[in-house]
Amino acid sequence: MTLRAGILGAAGYTGAELIRLIDQHPQLSLAYVAARENAGKSLGEMIPSTRGIQGLGDLVLQQFDEGDAQELAKKVDVVFAALPHAASARLGGALLDAGVQVVDLSADFRLRDLSVYEAWYGAHPRPELIAQAVYGLPELYRKELSGAQLIAGPGCYPTSVLLPLVPLFREGLVPIDQAVIVDSKTGTSGAGRKPLPSTNFSESGEGMRPYKIAGTHRHTPEMEQELSVAAGSEMRVLFTPQLAPMIRGILTTTYLRVTEDFDVTTCIEAARKHLGSNLITVLEGDHLPDTLHVRGSGRAQIAYAHDKRTSMLIGMCAIDNLARGASSQAIAAFNVSRAFDEDAGIPRLAQFP
Amino acid sequence: MTLRAGILGAAGYTGAELIRLIDQHPQLSLAYVAARENAGKSLGEMIPSTRGIQGLGDLVLQQFDEGDAQELAKKVDVVFAALPHAASARLGGALLDAGVQVVDLSADFRLRDLSVYEAWYGAHPRPELIAQAVYGLPELYRKELSGAQLIAGPGCYPTSVLLPLVPLFREGLVPIDQAVIVDSKTGTSGAGRKPLPSTNFSESGEGMRPYKIAGTHRHTPEMEQELSVAAGSEMRVLFTPQLAPMIRGILTTTYLRVTEDFDVTTCIEAARKHLGSNLITVLEGDHLPDTLHVRGSGRAQIAYAHDKRTSMLIGMCAIDNLARGASSQAIAAFNVSRAFDEDAGIPRLAQFP
Amino acid sequence: MTLRAGILGAAGYTGAELIRLIDQHPQLSLAYVAARENAGKSLGEMIPSTRGIQGLGDLVLQQFDEGDAQELAKKVDVVFAALPHAASARLGGALLDAGVQVVDLSADFRLRDLSVYEAWYGAHPRPELIAQAVYGLPELYRKELSGAQLIAGPGCYPTSVLLPLVPLFREGLVPIDQAVIVDSKTGTSGAGRKPLPSTNFSESGEGMRPYKIAGTHRHTPEMEQELSVAAGSEMRVLFTPQLAPMIRGILTTTYLRVTEDFDVTTCIEAARKHLGSNLITVLEGDHLPDTLHVRGSGRAQIAYAHDKRTSMLIGMCAIDNLARGASSQAIAAFNVSRAFDEDAGIPRLAQFP
Amino acid sequence: MTLRAGILGAAGYTGAELIRLIDQHPQLSLAYVAARENAGKSLGEMIPSTRGIQGLGDLVLQQFDEGDAQELAKKVDVVFAALPHAASARLGGALLDAGVQVVDLSADFRLRDLSVYEAWYGAHPRPELIAQAVYGLPELYRKELSGAQLIAGPGCYPTSVLLPLVPLFREGLVPIDQAVIVDSKTGTSGAGRKPLPSTNFSESGEGMRPYKIAGTHRHTPEMEQELSVAAGSEMRVLFTPQLAPMIRGILTTTYLRVTEDFDVTTCIEAARKHLGSNLITVLEGDHLPDTLHVRGSGRAQIAYAHDKRTSMLIGMCAIDNLARGASSQAIAAFNVSRAFDEDAGIPRLAQFP
Repeated sequence: MTLRAGILGAAGYTGAELIRLIDQHPQLSLAYVAARENAGKSLGEMIPSTRGIQGLGDLVLQQFDEGDAQELAKKVDVVFAALPHAASARLGGALLDAGVQVVDLSADFRLRDLSVYEAWYGAHPRPELIAQAVYGLPELYRKELSGAQLIAGPGCYPTSVLLPLVPLFREGLVPIDQAVIVDSKTGTSGAGRKPLPSTNFSESGEGMRPYKIAGTHRHTPEMEQELSVAAGSEMRVLFTPQLAPMIRGILTTTYLRVTEDFDVTTCIEAARKHLGSNLITVLEGDHLPDTLHVRGSGRAQIAYAHDKRTSMLIGMCAIDNLARGASSQAIAAFNVSRAFDEDAGIPRLAQFP
Repeated sequence: MTLRAGILGAAGYTGAELIRLIDQHPQLSLAYVAARENAGKSLGEMIPSTRGIQGLGDLVLQQFDEGDAQELAKKVDVVFAALPHAASARLGGALLDAGVQVVDLSADFRLRDLSVYEAWYGAHPRPELIAQAVYGLPELYRKELSGAQLIAGPGCYPTSVLLPLVPLFREGLVPIDQAVIVDSKTGTSGAGRKPLPSTNFSESGEGMRPYKIAGTHRHTPEMEQELSVAAGSEMRVLFTPQLAPMIRGILTTTYLRVTEDFDVTTCIEAARKHLGSNLITVLEGDHLPDTLHVRGSGRAQIAYAHDKRTSMLIGMCAIDNLARGASSQAIAAFNVSRAFDEDAGIPRLAQFP
Repeated sequence: MTLRAGILGAAGYTGAELIRLIDQHPQLSLAYVAARENAGKSLGEMIPSTRGIQGLGDLVLQQFDEGDAQELAKKVDVVFAALPHAASARLGGALLDAGVQVVDLSADFRLRDLSVYEAWYGAHPRPELIAQAVYGLPELYRKELSGAQLIAGPGCYPTSVLLPLVPLFREGLVPIDQAVIVDSKTGTSGAGRKPLPSTNFSESGEGMRPYKIAGTHRHTPEMEQELSVAAGSEMRVLFTPQLAPMIRGILTTTYLRVTEDFDVTTCIEAARKHLGSNLITVLEGDHLPDTLHVRGSGRAQIAYAHDKRTSMLIGMCAIDNLARGASSQAIAAFNVSRAFDEDAGIPRLAQFP
Repeated sequence: MTLRAGILGAAGYTGAELIRLIDQHPQLSLAYVAARENAGKSLGEMIPSTRGIQGLGDLVLQQFDEGDAQELAKKVDVVFAALPHAASARLGGALLDAGVQVVDLSADFRLRDLSVYEAWYGAHPRPELIAQAVYGLPELYRKELSGAQLIAGPGCYPTSVLLPLVPLFREGLVPIDQAVIVDSKTGTSGAGRKPLPSTNFSESGEGMRPYKIAGTHRHTPEMEQELSVAAGSEMRVLFTPQLAPMIRGILTTTYLRVTEDFDVTTCIEAARKHLGSNLITVLEGDHLPDTLHVRGSGRAQIAYAHDKRTSMLIGMCAIDNLARGASSQAIAAFNVSRAFDEDAGIPRLAQFP
């Protein structure tokens, strides 16, 4: 069976990555692409890797509005919405109403508490849909994703935090009376395709810098929500995002106080138990995560280390922010919802080097 | 039908790329990996992207010698040899003798004239095999590749030169009484995995530099051989390779004297006629090749421009040196030899960005 | 004696580099900074390297208009104008009228033929000033620069072409009945500070690409003008600029037809004779130019090679596009005009690595 | 007065940076360069930025042994020793015995407790000299450096930790009953010039990775020593070094538990009070440290932020690891020892971009 996929926001980096993955997905065909600001242009004009590929580079980017939902519902079975927040809920909501499965890659359906959403993002266009959205982290929500019509693709940073830490909190391995320290380093593609001074090559190359620190980054409440669910208690996160001179990748290093005689193998076992999948590597021995080792793939590399002298546990994770942190995870969640192979269409092997 | 593939030299970059592609090839399974200096180690130890993948990261790298050929012939149907020259002919030759199909990624079977090989590389261990080798540039040698038992994978730089220029010489579009000027820029992975001062990040980042210029690079005779065949006349090449601060990619810019009223669309037509494939994009309009737009894929981007004021033709090509310039092209040539889809196992879409 | 310098366009990359160099110049003090779009902001706000430096980071960027020329003339002895073309001639012209020495880093006074300027740039605001401008390439115009009141800072690409080639044409070493082939690779800072899609890190990293090829780049007439002067005959240039994934640097490779028995040492001698300065290195032996080896300095590395087989001469040059290609060369020309040490304020040693 | 400087280990990156800075130092001239493995080669051969510079590129690298100390003492006033540990103490010790001032850039004289040194580095060749060495962080040890004959240049990572944190502990602003969490990101030049697989461009570009984590990095005891002195109590550090795809730079992010109503301006005041110098910028407002903004300079950018929700203090610092983290700091300490301007020979302004 082949399903027809549409993409809203096909001219951005997340859209480009969706196109790459859908193109090699055995059960999906790309049937529709929309991009508001670039409507009327061909896909090849906007996504240069598609140039010259018949049936792909010559697709014309559409303008999609709420009123087009019924019409689009005849042409597609699932829509991946890679849009700014609010726009995503509005347009995705219309498609959902029209009977189309929606995988939303914005923040609109990630937060379960409307007041938290409003505090960080402003008014929500379709608050009544929040309850039916399933958080699309396949390893953690496999059961809930089965048959889901509205999937909320997780944020890139939260993915890199939840994968190593949720298993620990679910198993009660670490004290919950502490803030979780999260130090993340991301590539520039996480900032999106719109050119900014801060992501200009001349000012990004040779530059490492923090930004939106001390509780000001919008991914903070998402991390806290999911860690709190796992811990069964309200958790706080101190999140420090940092921009690194690379295109793709997130390396997250987390710090948690444990005991002097903590056994790090319990973490490895917990991760294996709760994250079992073709797309997770729990590293052992001297191996540590590296963004280069997961680039272009849906894989997450996870590792743990314990420092006896300070009684601290270090939980680490490397992902590709556009793949596992956005597009490949959206497809994996969709795969689970349809009972396809969880990794259908998703490279399990990174491009190395 | 699934065929069993072996890789000699699996711990290098070309080997790593072969593993990535074979892993997603519908008609190939990876049955054997060898790496002389790292024999006994697991694949995961050497190729970090395979870590934690069952049946892949735990494969053990073997030591392969000529005497093992009969034994290996029982386990594999095809061997990809990504070895230094001479070693490649010796070991590949033994496998060929034992009835195994060999796709050689070294220089050993690229040059048809033994004396030219000897002048550039020294003694050839199996000169008698040269005549039966087929040059593995699928778009140019499709017929010859059908059923080929010994395939010579083209060099990375020659691939980037032959794709844009062979069609022009075949069609007689450009004068043959001139040297072809080839100015190429490559990423560091072309220098291989062995760490060198010149490819150390600290001395490669922010550095553009020529090397092995003025007729000293070993890919020169290979370019001249194939251009001469296409032109039906002996062609000379002035080749300037340059190292660019990127991991993957070759951008080649070639210069040829034509006439003031030359029509560049004849080049585009010639390229389409002689290179027709799913993995070639002949760009038009303002679009020009970019290594980023082909990275990780088997695609070559080609473009032409004519400068009326100087009566010069510029032929350009961008490829991924590890994929189209080595491993994916080897697999494409193998595909043609077996009458599989030419692009089986090969991403047609680059990872963008 | 300390002279007071002003900068128009202080918030761009060329401006930032001027500030760095003036700050260490023994005979210059920074007395005035202007930046139209960012007027009112502190220098530290725009040039982050100046933050926290008293007397520098707290300088306020001014808005400078023609009417302010008389006033500014009381405060500064020399103005470096790093402005877009046309604006530069208009404002620089007003300052010149008011008796201020002007070093113009735009294209406005580089071309001696008004009709050529108009063909490439449009109307010239002050055409009557062209005749008095001196082309600010110190090694080539030392005499003319002495006492110059209006200096035209050369373009970055032309600098990298003229340094290796003018000596050859002055000495009559190469035939003049041919187009000069120029293949240049630049870092992203050459595109300026305004963020563009093409220089966004995500689309510049791992990307090599040509742009504005086949006689469409505005530096072409400047190269042709100066090569024609040196050759005593009208020369044509085929110029191929290419963007490389690095912040700073230009590597230029030029191709010229010579004879089979050409002696490359004559080029080295010509370069030493015509370019003698503390800021030129003519490489010999196996050494070839590398942008990393000149980064941050006013140095140009030059080398030549001859290919007997094709009778071609390769002339190569590496410079830092913001230093030797713009700001340090402007200061060197100014130094010569004032009979200061030619390299005053200019690092002769690159930052390596 | 001009003093004559010698460099041991002149062919490495720290040596290259010393050469760059000494070359522009008003009171130093480079009189002697040694490099064991490359003795007999010219400086230009090893440090390509010096090629073609008379009196610099043609200096011959010497082989220096203990027995040469008396002879060398006649030729130099100060020696900068950029050698591996143990070799540094042995050769530096011999020079000190011969009356030469020694600025040691290895770890040999950083640790005051011999047993700590032995535990991390093995036997110390000259333990009796430890007591007379002065820790060369000028802002923190100005008085002690005055007249010092043996200076221990601080480690790159410790510099980035001590600058933001020592003022806080000296002022008693943060609780001392906690481990200090230090998350650092470094460029590849910190790993030295010897090519390694991990710093090969192909495996460093696009890669962020931790290494030597959980109390295994040798800079840990140095951080603990100096923080303990400042705090007046034994402090523990959890140090996580990470390799980033850039040549130069360290960005360090530190985490400390404080109170909910902590006032971050007290940190800024403490930093200004204890670090007053031309080479320190304490950032305020929205500005945060960036390695690009200090590259090539002796400047350290420092900033603090407080997260009310988690009661955590974030102390940040960006430096150039080869300049402030090694060579420029060594020269600044030397300057203080001789009562020269603290920043003589040291760029206060980074190369931006």
